[in-house]
Formats: sequence, structure tokens, C-alpha cells
Amino acid sequence: MCAIVPFGATAPKTRLDAVLSSAERHAFAVAMLRDVLAALRGADFDPLVVATDAVDVDARVVVDDAPLTDAVNARLDEPPVAVVMADLPLATPDALARLRDPDADVVLAPGRGGGTNALLTRRADFSVDYHECSLCDHRSIARSMDASLAEVDSFRLATDVDEPTDLAEVLLHGTGAAHDWLVDNGFELVSEGGRVRARIE
Amino acid sequence: MCAIVPFGATAPKTRLDAVLSSAERHAFAVAMLRDVLAALRGADFDPLVVATDAVDVDARVVVDDAPLTDAVNARLDEPPVAVVMADLPLATPDALARLRDPDADVVLAPGRGGGTNALLTRRADFSVDYHECSLCDHRSIARSMDASLAEVDSFRLATDVDEPTDLAEVLLHGTGAAHDWLVDNGFELVSEGGRVRARIE
Repeated sequence: MCAIVPFGATAPKTRLDAVLSSAERHAFAVAMLRDVLAALRGADFDPLVVATDAVDVDARVVVDDAPLTDAVNARLDEPPVAVVMADLPLATPDALARLRDPDADVVLAPGRGGGTNALLTRRADFSVDYHECSLCDHRSIARSMDASLAEVDSFRLATDVDEPTDLAEVLLHGTGAAHDWLVDNGFELVSEGGRVRARIE
Repeated sequence: MCAIVPFGATAPKTRLDAVLSSAERHAFAVAMLRDVLAALRGADFDPLVVATDAVDVDARVVVDDAPLTDAVNARLDEPPVAVVMADLPLATPDALARLRDPDADVVLAPGRGGGTNALLTRRADFSVDYHECSLCDHRSIARSMDASLAEVDSFRLATDVDEPTDLAEVLLHGTGAAHDWLVDNGFELVSEGGRVRARIE
């Protein structure tokens, strides 16, 4: 099954600017993308990176500078198809395989804060909307189509990395390129106010 | 199987003080506890609330004002036994039942930021340590005992509610007493900086 992986190649991960330079953010974003691609292959998905600019990864890449929602919707017409965000460095083959488990027309893996970090559709008339609370929108869209809907309860898929506090999760649970990139660049765990944080040594 | 549910009845949820008064925090904490107890029963666990003071819930309650780690360790000597935090209002019977699935001596359900939101031990010599990064500590303790270790990948169990930003998850995914308490007290979802937040209307 094809898995579309949108990738914002231009100035990715701007909310990490307090801890990473522009070049570092790009390198870290590519490391996360590589982890997602490896996990997708391990779960027998066939990844297709849809990037706003060229990116050097070992996968099929198409460049499309349309907004995220449009770029994905242009590629949903041959279901079943999955859409998996590029910033899920905790994703494992087991976690991604769970997208296929429910016998439902539309399967959503929520992200924190109302995001949709991964989804699978078996209906050609499903479309995405990544503005604001995309999870709310995708639930509504499925309902409006009378599509059956299921959600995957996965911490690994819920953990997209956008903000400095998210980096701790990569150090705690990651095992791939993004984890190694943080370690190689001097990040380590420190305790702070009840939860651990990642900080430069 | 017994599931110990520690509950800090004295000034619970202090990090919610920016949005809830002391009396409100207590009422909301009890609502979350009730959700956890209902979900545990739905998963065929026998809950035992270990509270620092009396609390009015429909379950066995023992009052123990010892620190959290000590109060739990005093009750782990008859495995198998689970320990489930009281601030997991997204917990469902399905999510909690997954604690029993792995055939491992120790099963951990990570919380965000290095917490251990739920665990199950089949070994009487396992002990907990809830200071700092409890997940790191519990992994180490299991390793030092040569215990087999598994982790449950659940967003619902990873989502403990400590901070105002966590309330949005309750509105988005909760269906029980804590969700209803927030709605009854005027909270609603608003979009803010890429993730949705809960705000008083």
C-alpha cells in the first residue's frame, strides 16, 4: 500500500528555532523523515515523499509546492492509501502496521493537540484538511461520507516533534536517525518540573 | 488482578492553578479518578485507591500519607498487580487491557516526559521509583532484576493531565466524567499556534 509522506523542505520545524539553527533544523527534519521511511518499509508500506523541494532520501520523491492539504488531496484517488507525517521519529513498523488493523473505511492516528499524524483511507471520496484541528475535521469528513471510522491508540504515532519539549521523547523512545542526530549534537535528558526535557550538554 | 491507583487528595493538580481554583482542581481530579476506576473495572481489574486523604469514590480506598513511591511499594508483594495513575481521563478498558497482553515480567505504559503512567508487574521483587524520570528508573530496575520488559504503546495511557495544555486532549478524546466536568465548567477548544488548546468560554 502506498503511504504518502508530506515533507516541508523549506524552513522546516521553525518552532525548534530556540534550540536549533536553520541548517540544524533541516538536518534533523531529514533524519526524522528517514526514520519514518524506514518504519513504513518495515510495515510493508510503499512510501512516496511529497516534498516542497528536493530532498536526499532513499525513497521515491515528488516535488510539489502546493499547500499541504492540496498536495495530499491530489494523491488520494487510488485507495487504499495512507498519509503519514514526516516528523514522527518514534514510529515503528508495529505502530504503523496498526493503521491497517481496523476494518474501517477511514483510520486516524491522532497527534497531540488535535493533529492527524497518520491516516489510512479505503474510500476514494475521502479528503484531508490539515488546517486548525485536523482530527476534528477528519472525523467530520468521514461522518459526512457515512464512512466507517476507527482511531489507532498509539503514543508513538501521536508524538510529532514540533517544539523543544518534544525532543525529550526522541531521546527517551527513539532508536533511529533522529535519536542519533540529537545525541551526536550534544542533547541529553535533564529533569525539569516533573517531566524530563532535552537540553544541549 | 488488583490495580493500585495512587491519588494525591491534598492539593491535587497544582500545575492547573492558572486555569482552575483549588476547589475546582480537586473536583476535576476526582472526576479523572472516577474515569480511571470505571475503565479499570471495564478491563476486569480490581481497583484499590491509595489516597493521601479520604476521597468519595465508589471503590476500595485506603488512606496512606506516605510518599507516592513508598505507598505503592508497600503494596506490590502479591503479583500480578498493576499500578495506574489517577490522572488518565482518556484511559479506556481496551487501553488498560493491553497492560496484560505482553508475556513479560514487567510491562510499562510510558507517560509523556519520562513518566510511567501505568505498569504491571508479575514479579514480587519489582519496586517502583516515581522520582524524576520514572520510566528510566523502571527500565533500569527491571534490567537489574533480569526481568523481561515490555512497553505498551498507547496515547490514551500516555496522556496524564497535569498542565493547562493537556486539557484539550480531554475535550478531544474523553467521554467520561472529566470531559463532562470541563464542558460543564465552560471549557471549549480553540486553535492556537498549530495545536488546539482548551479555554474557558
